[in-house]
Amino acid sequence: MGFKAAEPDFAARTRASFARQNVMKLLGARLSRVEPGRVEITLPFRDDLTQQHGFFHAGVTSTIADSAGGYAAFTLFPADATVLTTEYKINLLAPADGQSLRAVGRVVKPGRTLSVCDVEVFVDKGGAERLCAKMLQSLIALSGRSDDRAR
Amino acid sequence: MGFKAAEPDFAARTRASFARQNVMKLLGARLSRVEPGRVEITLPFRDDLTQQHGFFHAGVTSTIADSAGGYAAFTLFPADATVLTTEYKINLLAPADGQSLRAVGRVVKPGRTLSVCDVEVFVDKGGAERLCAKMLQSLIALSGRSDDRAR
Amino acid sequence: MGFKAAEPDFAARTRASFARQNVMKLLGARLSRVEPGRVEITLPFRDDLTQQHGFFHAGVTSTIADSAGGYAAFTLFPADATVLTTEYKINLLAPADGQSLRAVGRVVKPGRTLSVCDVEVFVDKGGAERLCAKMLQSLIALSGRSDDRAR
Amino acid sequence: MGFKAAEPDFAARTRASFARQNVMKLLGARLSRVEPGRVEITLPFRDDLTQQHGFFHAGVTSTIADSAGGYAAFTLFPADATVLTTEYKINLLAPADGQSLRAVGRVVKPGRTLSVCDVEVFVDKGGAERLCAKMLQSLIALSGRSDDRAR
Repeated sequence: MGFKAAEPDFAARTRASFARQNVMKLLGARLSRVEPGRVEITLPFRDDLTQQHGFFHAGVTSTIADSAGGYAAFTLFPADATVLTTEYKINLLAPADGQSLRAVGRVVKPGRTLSVCDVEVFVDKGGAERLCAKMLQSLIALSGRSDDRAR
Repeated sequence: MGFKAAEPDFAARTRASFARQNVMKLLGARLSRVEPGRVEITLPFRDDLTQQHGFFHAGVTSTIADSAGGYAAFTLFPADATVLTTEYKINLLAPADGQSLRAVGRVVKPGRTLSVCDVEVFVDKGGAERLCAKMLQSLIALSGRSDDRAR
Repeated sequence: MGFKAAEPDFAARTRASFARQNVMKLLGARLSRVEPGRVEITLPFRDDLTQQHGFFHAGVTSTIADSAGGYAAFTLFPADATVLTTEYKINLLAPADGQSLRAVGRVVKPGRTLSVCDVEVFVDKGGAERLCAKMLQSLIALSGRSDDRAR
Repeated sequence: MGFKAAEPDFAARTRASFARQNVMKLLGARLSRVEPGRVEITLPFRDDLTQQHGFFHAGVTSTIADSAGGYAAFTLFPADATVLTTEYKINLLAPADGQSLRAVGRVVKPGRTLSVCDVEVFVDKGGAERLCAKMLQSLIALSGRSDDRAR
């Protein structure tokens, strides 16, 4: 919705931080789009990402949704700030049954301390996308703290 | 809180369903305790479970918390019902910085259709446990539907 | 988003149910718009609706948001069903400081048992509207149960 | 859980702030207990507090729950800080059908900026109390800002 990034290299900074989220490699998630206040993450189906019925586990859906929202907020942060999720709520609207997931995180309310994001997750089955989850999420900007790994 | 399982083999049924959640193997999670209305899942630290600062990713914390609550509800279900999470909310209270996570799911309100669980996640650092996340979760019992894999 | 009401008199049924919500009279709330899957409620400022800083209390904002979402779902229900909120989450994005509130409830996912709504609340200050709250809500359709007063 | 108030007059400050929440008078709510990190609010039934079935409206339940949690956090704040709810999630576990409500707010995680509370609401029917709602809530401490009315 017409957000402006605080830093010209917001996309490179976001991609570098995403690359440090090792769990994204484990799951096979990819940062597919980075815009000011809007980030997309995609995840192809694998059998080792499933719950008992053989669909994507809700926690896996949540993991990419959480990062999509977190990085949507991060794109608007100044260079000396890192991001942490303080809480989120997710409604699982339909079984995540398909060949891939796409999480779209959008900033609803940017803030110096707290930001709020809306994230929608779509499941693609045979080329048709369906909304399967919706998240409402709060994030905190931690200033003067490196986004890099502490351990 | 004095819940009674509907089926005598609730623990075996819960363990069998957990074993079909392939993502638990991927993460390295273990079903460490099963009681009527109360389930624990533990997860040792691995570097490939982390977010950008090197701590457990919030999505990983959520994944084991979601299954702990889901199976806590499942222990009270009749044999012909399976469980799905309809929604949850999680507050991340402290960085998940430590050697292992322990998620404790407890049924707050059992129901024929909807159940509500409270889940607490503790992080162990050097032998001291600290509450790092709290979840409030809704689950639906789907009757007459197999808990087994659809694909 | 192109929802179709199940009953031709959905608007009259919704208005009749709203009129039975006595707390709406107490607060001074008005059902300002009823469409299939979308309902608006407006509430003028009064000093007896406030929290300690003199703004609308978050609970008052939540009350009209909850009814806006609940009735948005209700517009899609068959005639023999009533609606109950099972849970909701609300983010308070900005102080509710202004002359009136407008809650817009929209169905995100209709369902025979569970429906999910997104509700946005705007505060009007001097003619300019601002998003002040966002809700994600679950509702249950109770079939074969009167929507009328039990007591 | 063994919280210590930052100020010796925390109870008087909490009661004074509650008295400025005009909506509490409108509803007839009473601050029935104030301890460090724990606050109770009670609300007798009135027909003008109801939803369409004649029970307490979910928004009314939420209003006293929100204030119970908010003031539980406030009891631990220093004298120069005021409190705002940033978000909450509430599960409505049973119809709020009875003669009075009692909301019990407890701090789960105190913080200089953000605090998290757990709130339980009980409905009393004929002398028997039943848990009817559970809330998980985030609050922000605003330092150097008066708790008094801005308008």
